[in-house]
Amino acid sequence: MADQDAQTPVGIEPPPLSVLRWEEPPQGPAVVLLDQTRLPSEEVELVCADVPALVEAIRTLAVRGAPLLGIAGGYGVALAAARGEDVESASDLLGRARPTAVNLGYGARRVAAVHRSAIEGGAGLPDAAAAALAEARALHREDAEASGRMARYGLELLAELLPGDGQHRLLTHCNTGALVSGGAGTAFAVALRAHHEGRLRRLWVDETRPLLQGARLTAYEAGRNGMPYDVLADSAAGSLFAAGEVDAVLIGADRIAADGSVANKVGSYPLAVLAKYHHVPFVVVAPTTTVDLGTADGASIIVEQRPAAEVTEITSVPGFPAAGGRAVRALAPSGAKAYNPAFDVTPPELVTAIVTEEGVVSPVTGVGLAELCARSSQVTIS
Amino acid sequence: MADQDAQTPVGIEPPPLSVLRWEEPPQGPAVVLLDQTRLPSEEVELVCADVPALVEAIRTLAVRGAPLLGIAGGYGVALAAARGEDVESASDLLGRARPTAVNLGYGARRVAAVHRSAIEGGAGLPDAAAAALAEARALHREDAEASGRMARYGLELLAELLPGDGQHRLLTHCNTGALVSGGAGTAFAVALRAHHEGRLRRLWVDETRPLLQGARLTAYEAGRNGMPYDVLADSAAGSLFAAGEVDAVLIGADRIAADGSVANKVGSYPLAVLAKYHHVPFVVVAPTTTVDLGTADGASIIVEQRPAAEVTEITSVPGFPAAGGRAVRALAPSGAKAYNPAFDVTPPELVTAIVTEEGVVSPVTGVGLAELCARSSQVTIS
Repeated sequence: MADQDAQTPVGIEPPPLSVLRWEEPPQGPAVVLLDQTRLPSEEVELVCADVPALVEAIRTLAVRGAPLLGIAGGYGVALAAARGEDVESASDLLGRARPTAVNLGYGARRVAAVHRSAIEGGAGLPDAAAAALAEARALHREDAEASGRMARYGLELLAELLPGDGQHRLLTHCNTGALVSGGAGTAFAVALRAHHEGRLRRLWVDETRPLLQGARLTAYEAGRNGMPYDVLADSAAGSLFAAGEVDAVLIGADRIAADGSVANKVGSYPLAVLAKYHHVPFVVVAPTTTVDLGTADGASIIVEQRPAAEVTEITSVPGFPAAGGRAVRALAPSGAKAYNPAFDVTPPELVTAIVTEEGVVSPVTGVGLAELCARSSQVTIS
Repeated sequence: MADQDAQTPVGIEPPPLSVLRWEEPPQGPAVVLLDQTRLPSEEVELVCADVPALVEAIRTLAVRGAPLLGIAGGYGVALAAARGEDVESASDLLGRARPTAVNLGYGARRVAAVHRSAIEGGAGLPDAAAAALAEARALHREDAEASGRMARYGLELLAELLPGDGQHRLLTHCNTGALVSGGAGTAFAVALRAHHEGRLRRLWVDETRPLLQGARLTAYEAGRNGMPYDVLADSAAGSLFAAGEVDAVLIGADRIAADGSVANKVGSYPLAVLAKYHHVPFVVVAPTTTVDLGTADGASIIVEQRPAAEVTEITSVPGFPAAGGRAVRALAPSGAKAYNPAFDVTPPELVTAIVTEEGVVSPVTGVGLAELCARSSQVTIS
């Protein structure tokens, strides 16, 4: 694993992380995944040669992250088609592997629809399977391209917002990189592009309790890319702001309401308040598919409450059950209750800009957001 | 252990936590400690029958917290005296057990001085030992009394600040209860008194990364006292404020500068910013011995940077090495750097009030603070 201070020379980029790939025969057909439950300790690939294996990988969080799950769902249907299996039931099975992951069902249904249409158009099973695979690849490529555009728009925005030497100290929360995307991700992709262009002075990585996606996954991606970074306890961000060590905050989004309210991993909102208090830009980077025009405002977003054990036991952190047996490692007294919301909601007045693959909305208004979504050629998932 | 929803009926208080006590012969003489490294899983007492055993207990954090360490230092010297050992070298040994703990040396020196004075006054060793023990007990009692006064002043202040039904939802950070004090503590003592008077609706307990003093110790104390509480990831406090679920923040202090700037466990400052943004009182509860009039302002406070491993490995959390062997349990990639300040500094303009055993300063000004310290009959530790 690359040391985080061993910066990649500008212009020389390490090979992109192979998080999910399609394996052709004779080794395949198979969907090959980087097993994210083994990170950051081990880089192990998981070969899913049939749909049940892929469903299991999705259930155990070996593969995760909204856009990446959509791509996994798409390839899963292509896999069923390549094996001559029932594509509709595979699509259904994949779509239900994680009930709240809307992208998963979207990817599976999109590829299944192309397969069905090919069959209805008179294609044989091999040609329909080829069409399904082509559609999965298209979905993958679209997502990678969207990442690339968000990274470019985001970095242009930072150049406008941040006068000075063009060297940015960026704070991020949770994991928004290649591990959740067909490309370089959302917020992380902006930081990575800054690094590639020699403009990243430091990436501050919130560890992101309770599940530590920042410490485990973002730090892994930053290290692998030779970016200069430090992990911090989420609540240590305050002293960084106070010391003037943060030039901008970059986060992703789980859902953006029509008024520009941003639901994202819990801990995003306090960063927005800190950023406002210290006059630091707070930038949200997310594809237009994240915008849900059917949700009017922040108050309409229902916040999922997660199990207390994620806070009170370390075994809830992926990697720990495998490493430490099934014994519970208590972080709090037996029976302790926990307040454990999955995400929080940041109102538009605290968001400096929303960066999408279609461009930037700043200041954040419902009208600006709606105009930008109308420009999007992508199907909006809702 | 009491379930945290099993509230103690108002007026019936559980026996105070025996965190540190003096054991007379024939079982003693000994200093008996609740081993804090075994909490919250086990309540185990550690019997220190001589000074080296007590020094070891201090070094391994079996006993911790500034005021409690002062008391431990005092009883340690009394123990040496009771055993007929060299009191001055015992005082020196205890004072150096943890170099940055000023109270430890203060307690040891104070009791040693009384012993010396008795000897110089012609007392025999048994009488000098009795005088030393009496002084250690006095130190213990003074600290307990200070806790009681802070609790009373703090609760009176909350009644003034918080109109409504008199039922408070209080958010606290780190551990400030009986485990660090000769009495009920500082900030926690206010919440406990509110509970005893039927005025605590809920105690929100920040888990307090990286060392989890909130989840491990404050939750333990809250549960033991039958208080209604929830643990939360530190960064989940933002959504509680946004939802209007926090009536006041109560924290302790490691050091208070002459201008009223408060150094406390990292994560306190972001709570102060959130409290300001949401118009919620932010109250610091600390004895006047915490005020360091020799430190002019917040900028003059040097913030200790702690080892990265506290953030990047779970084994740094007390209790985990014992429970899981010495194997490192990585939370971040191998070699990851971490920004890990021990505390942060909250400027006086973000502090609604400072509550001490001598009374309350609000608004927080250097003049008000100096007047209050001048009232203190206690020796200022610096």
